[in-house]
Amino acid sequence: MKVSVIGATGYAGAELLRILSNHPEVEVAAITSESHTGTGITEIYPHLAGFYDKKLTSMKDLDQFADSQAVFIGLPHGHAMAIGRPLAEQGIKVIDLGADYRFRDESIYEAWYKVEHTHRNSGAVYGLTELYRQQIRSASIVGNAGCYTTASILALAPLAKSHLIDTKNIVVDAKSGVSGAGRGLSQNVHMAEMSENLKAYSIAGHRHTPEIEQALQEISGQDSLISFTPHLIPMSRGILSTCYATLQEGVKPEDIDQAFHEMYGQEFFIRLLGPGGYPAVKHTRGSNFCDLGWHIDSRTNRVIVVSAIDNLVKGAAGQAVQNFNVMFGFKEDSGLKQVALYP
Amino acid sequence: MKVSVIGATGYAGAELLRILSNHPEVEVAAITSESHTGTGITEIYPHLAGFYDKKLTSMKDLDQFADSQAVFIGLPHGHAMAIGRPLAEQGIKVIDLGADYRFRDESIYEAWYKVEHTHRNSGAVYGLTELYRQQIRSASIVGNAGCYTTASILALAPLAKSHLIDTKNIVVDAKSGVSGAGRGLSQNVHMAEMSENLKAYSIAGHRHTPEIEQALQEISGQDSLISFTPHLIPMSRGILSTCYATLQEGVKPEDIDQAFHEMYGQEFFIRLLGPGGYPAVKHTRGSNFCDLGWHIDSRTNRVIVVSAIDNLVKGAAGQAVQNFNVMFGFKEDSGLKQVALYP
Amino acid sequence: MKVSVIGATGYAGAELLRILSNHPEVEVAAITSESHTGTGITEIYPHLAGFYDKKLTSMKDLDQFADSQAVFIGLPHGHAMAIGRPLAEQGIKVIDLGADYRFRDESIYEAWYKVEHTHRNSGAVYGLTELYRQQIRSASIVGNAGCYTTASILALAPLAKSHLIDTKNIVVDAKSGVSGAGRGLSQNVHMAEMSENLKAYSIAGHRHTPEIEQALQEISGQDSLISFTPHLIPMSRGILSTCYATLQEGVKPEDIDQAFHEMYGQEFFIRLLGPGGYPAVKHTRGSNFCDLGWHIDSRTNRVIVVSAIDNLVKGAAGQAVQNFNVMFGFKEDSGLKQVALYP
Amino acid sequence: MKVSVIGATGYAGAELLRILSNHPEVEVAAITSESHTGTGITEIYPHLAGFYDKKLTSMKDLDQFADSQAVFIGLPHGHAMAIGRPLAEQGIKVIDLGADYRFRDESIYEAWYKVEHTHRNSGAVYGLTELYRQQIRSASIVGNAGCYTTASILALAPLAKSHLIDTKNIVVDAKSGVSGAGRGLSQNVHMAEMSENLKAYSIAGHRHTPEIEQALQEISGQDSLISFTPHLIPMSRGILSTCYATLQEGVKPEDIDQAFHEMYGQEFFIRLLGPGGYPAVKHTRGSNFCDLGWHIDSRTNRVIVVSAIDNLVKGAAGQAVQNFNVMFGFKEDSGLKQVALYP
Repeated sequence: MKVSVIGATGYAGAELLRILSNHPEVEVAAITSESHTGTGITEIYPHLAGFYDKKLTSMKDLDQFADSQAVFIGLPHGHAMAIGRPLAEQGIKVIDLGADYRFRDESIYEAWYKVEHTHRNSGAVYGLTELYRQQIRSASIVGNAGCYTTASILALAPLAKSHLIDTKNIVVDAKSGVSGAGRGLSQNVHMAEMSENLKAYSIAGHRHTPEIEQALQEISGQDSLISFTPHLIPMSRGILSTCYATLQEGVKPEDIDQAFHEMYGQEFFIRLLGPGGYPAVKHTRGSNFCDLGWHIDSRTNRVIVVSAIDNLVKGAAGQAVQNFNVMFGFKEDSGLKQVALYP
Repeated sequence: MKVSVIGATGYAGAELLRILSNHPEVEVAAITSESHTGTGITEIYPHLAGFYDKKLTSMKDLDQFADSQAVFIGLPHGHAMAIGRPLAEQGIKVIDLGADYRFRDESIYEAWYKVEHTHRNSGAVYGLTELYRQQIRSASIVGNAGCYTTASILALAPLAKSHLIDTKNIVVDAKSGVSGAGRGLSQNVHMAEMSENLKAYSIAGHRHTPEIEQALQEISGQDSLISFTPHLIPMSRGILSTCYATLQEGVKPEDIDQAFHEMYGQEFFIRLLGPGGYPAVKHTRGSNFCDLGWHIDSRTNRVIVVSAIDNLVKGAAGQAVQNFNVMFGFKEDSGLKQVALYP
Repeated sequence: MKVSVIGATGYAGAELLRILSNHPEVEVAAITSESHTGTGITEIYPHLAGFYDKKLTSMKDLDQFADSQAVFIGLPHGHAMAIGRPLAEQGIKVIDLGADYRFRDESIYEAWYKVEHTHRNSGAVYGLTELYRQQIRSASIVGNAGCYTTASILALAPLAKSHLIDTKNIVVDAKSGVSGAGRGLSQNVHMAEMSENLKAYSIAGHRHTPEIEQALQEISGQDSLISFTPHLIPMSRGILSTCYATLQEGVKPEDIDQAFHEMYGQEFFIRLLGPGGYPAVKHTRGSNFCDLGWHIDSRTNRVIVVSAIDNLVKGAAGQAVQNFNVMFGFKEDSGLKQVALYP
Repeated sequence: MKVSVIGATGYAGAELLRILSNHPEVEVAAITSESHTGTGITEIYPHLAGFYDKKLTSMKDLDQFADSQAVFIGLPHGHAMAIGRPLAEQGIKVIDLGADYRFRDESIYEAWYKVEHTHRNSGAVYGLTELYRQQIRSASIVGNAGCYTTASILALAPLAKSHLIDTKNIVVDAKSGVSGAGRGLSQNVHMAEMSENLKAYSIAGHRHTPEIEQALQEISGQDSLISFTPHLIPMSRGILSTCYATLQEGVKPEDIDQAFHEMYGQEFFIRLLGPGGYPAVKHTRGSNFCDLGWHIDSRTNRVIVVSAIDNLVKGAAGQAVQNFNVMFGFKEDSGLKQVALYP
């Protein structure tokens, strides 16, 4: 089966190419980049030499996608809608790695992203595989979950679903490697300045906030309100999300354990380290796993859940392929059954 | 004036030697290490060559401290009490960088550290300079504040003092470089495993928790209860503490600004980045500064304060020298007026 | 086909398990560790969870290898000989990742390693696949090439074979990530001390020196003498080897290009970046590639060849599996056709 | 005494400000930046807050330097000549941190830098303090030595002066942290790509080559020819230079030791680790030291000298201040007597 990748030169796009090279059912057709049209992909990413011998094209030529059954989009938010609509209308399945198709209520998207939504009622399904698998199966468009959101929602979903926590009183303190800031250049990602450095950003205003709240509301049937703070960590890849929630009255430790095991007991890509477990991002590096551990702070009546993922895999390209596998009925771990790179 | 350093081979001890080498009023007399007695300090720390040409002695020989007017102690908790008592009895001022002298109520120390306190009613003063300066001036023993605690208390103290926040509903999510784990070896600090890694530890049980609560209670006159989570970050030095507190009713942004400026407006070592400010640990690297920024999350009615320090300077040796300067009436920035090493 | 791994808890052993989990023809039978006998492998390496659910055994129980057709050995030098002999005698093929079987002349091994060689005339073949493929095909024992040596020999072999350089006047300046120092603990690998650090070690005495010389002599038919200097670099994985050789009289740039293309033009795992090319270790991270670039310094009449590998893959476990594939007639890239993890 | 800094926003300029803040004899007057004229220096470098409260000016206003007795220039090569000439003509002493004033023979500068030299016969002295101290004392213009060159020349000078090595057969393999690439942005310094990465660059063409050769020729009175290869290392600061030279006939180990001790025995900023010594860049971090160790490879008849410096201190701003101290008769270590930041 042929698939194409729009926006192949961003980090998520390059990671898609890495993963798809290992997918037994897939052949990559077109790969596009508006800023590097005509350039060979290995000139930009020499690590792909031996696997891809293609030139980047412009996405404006829609004909090149005609024989692709699915197209992955790795564009900045606001740009996927314009190309997603014609692709969907041609019957090509779309997996967008950006934010354009993540919100059930487009007005929330417009409020946080300051962009008009031009593809309303697209029927897009939210692409957090473990929680929306059933809907993804028959979806034409999937709005792949964000990196921070994947880590944070997977950490809190079992507790929200089982009504063990107050969904309106949650703090999510998340930490990401610098690849999360994208391939673009800024003083922020200059290694001389970011090495041995550490800082918070976008406090009380990061756009992944409403995405987490949307999911927790749908899962719990209750309003959700979180304080979300992202941090830049001096490493290339990986997200650790530390989530603090206040326990409802009478919740016992075994209730919490049960909630996690009920929701994730059969999930290959979610590894439960159990109560007292400490996920480490390096154990997920390059893999599609999300590792989870949880802790009860009885003095403060809080539960603290820690999750670790690779932001470019389970937080982007890996989950996109997982969703793709679900959409087309392939084995869900096709192309994804890889051990993390450790140490 | 002569001073001595007990436990000079730990990272805090070595950092003391670095700072004291630059102190105009001080000559270092004895430096001790029980595990390396007889070894030259530059064999262990070649970076000190050119400044120190001393051999390490055993602290058991009390006579060597006779002409020291102050002794810094850099021993693991539980070991400072035994040497602190005889030193204090000889009239030598003691600055302990460990936990033994930090608690007003020794039973809290015993509960969290699982060690019997053998030097009760020592009259020790808590060594967080900006908050306890008056008492430190006349103290014989100072229990220097811990690294996480310095960063966290400085972030929250103005809000606690002005009663702008609920001191019983606080989350402190703190991140530290690996030097915070000490010089001892463990798989945790193996660079092959910790580079590009990130994890939480000691959730709901870290011993800096009661230290932060003690300070917030004294400052606010109210009970305090916090969830404190430390994290190990892939860098050598630095702490970033992200503190989440719920605002009391009716608090306005200018109240918060005012609280910070009232408390710290005249402090050289505290730099206020203001509302919306983002401290970065690298801006404090090797210096005694604590940088502070604060943010209001009006959706959730929280204030989020971020603080950055160098864990070995303001979080240990630097603050110890600052306290020493206060105790002896030297200029408070003697030996400490140094720009951070950036980039 | 069943295979076993002796010494599975070192970094090379863990990397073997990662690669073998992806090998279509292989099932891992026994995994051993003398220091962790009885422990589950995922307790030591949580990143293997989901792939291995085994306990470590002692290698002393030879029966457990009876149904393995091949055994990989990841022991420190001096320990493989004792177990290699009985395995070979049972007809089990042995791939040793250490130094015991690398030397054609065991007295050189004894001189550099200060260990008596107890398995002489074993018929072992040197396991640098691209250069010894023919002999590896029928080998019973393979002494897998070392990490520095793989990078260095692959860089120089074409020039040595074509007699373009003076093989007695070579400088190899090699740089390795800290995983090359092994999983054992030392102050050297403490992240607080090694992060943002860099140093040389074992100058004029590193044991990979005679291994490089042996290969260059066999390839060129001439004596070889090199100055080899390894360095420790603040990163986890990767080796960059910068090799300086004096050109023979009359050598033209195209002779050099031709030598590389003749020797490696058909090799999948060697990527020729050509004259003026600059390999970067990150482009090979987690992959079995060796990237090569070469430069002529006409002022000094030298050729400078730079090679990059992942020390744990092409420099250890990956090449071991490549050799295994050759020994058993599998596709040479089985289990190894993976894109590097970049960025 | 007043001094000014032209080009204060580059890394070397910022480091000058750090060091000068600690200099007892100096007050900083003007600080300039053509790209950030009018901006406060602490907006660009928040770590300088508390020490500098100045706005950046344009260097075009020459009047502002009238009361400065010395001006440091931190501009890219080719730009210092235009401003250096009028300053010198006004009797202001100039310390240029770039390449414009480093070459005795300006045609070598022009050949390697591809820029016309517009300030010939300026009387500039080469600013490698330990080797040119006598001339620096009375210099009006100093062309501060480059970073790689300082490390490399200091390593080889004693051997060249004592004629112990063949100065026409030298390999210098140097490794630098990314701050050496400057503050400008490029994919090369993006932390996601450079972290855990390592590569060579400018092989056989780096502009520090002729600078090293010039110094070795002057010291030895013999022609010099070196192969110089720089590498980018995943760290912020520091240079390690590994220098390979062939010994002249009959040279004994003690001759080498003697050469180093004769030349550097009285130098505070050069620390001799002796034969068998291994400098580590972190031991020099933030300090003005150059650490040296040397090794004889008797098999190949080579001596291998390793040197470590902080590229921004001894390799740039620190040595500039050291030269300034010499020029004005201050204590040579004024503002520079600081212990390295370790760990």
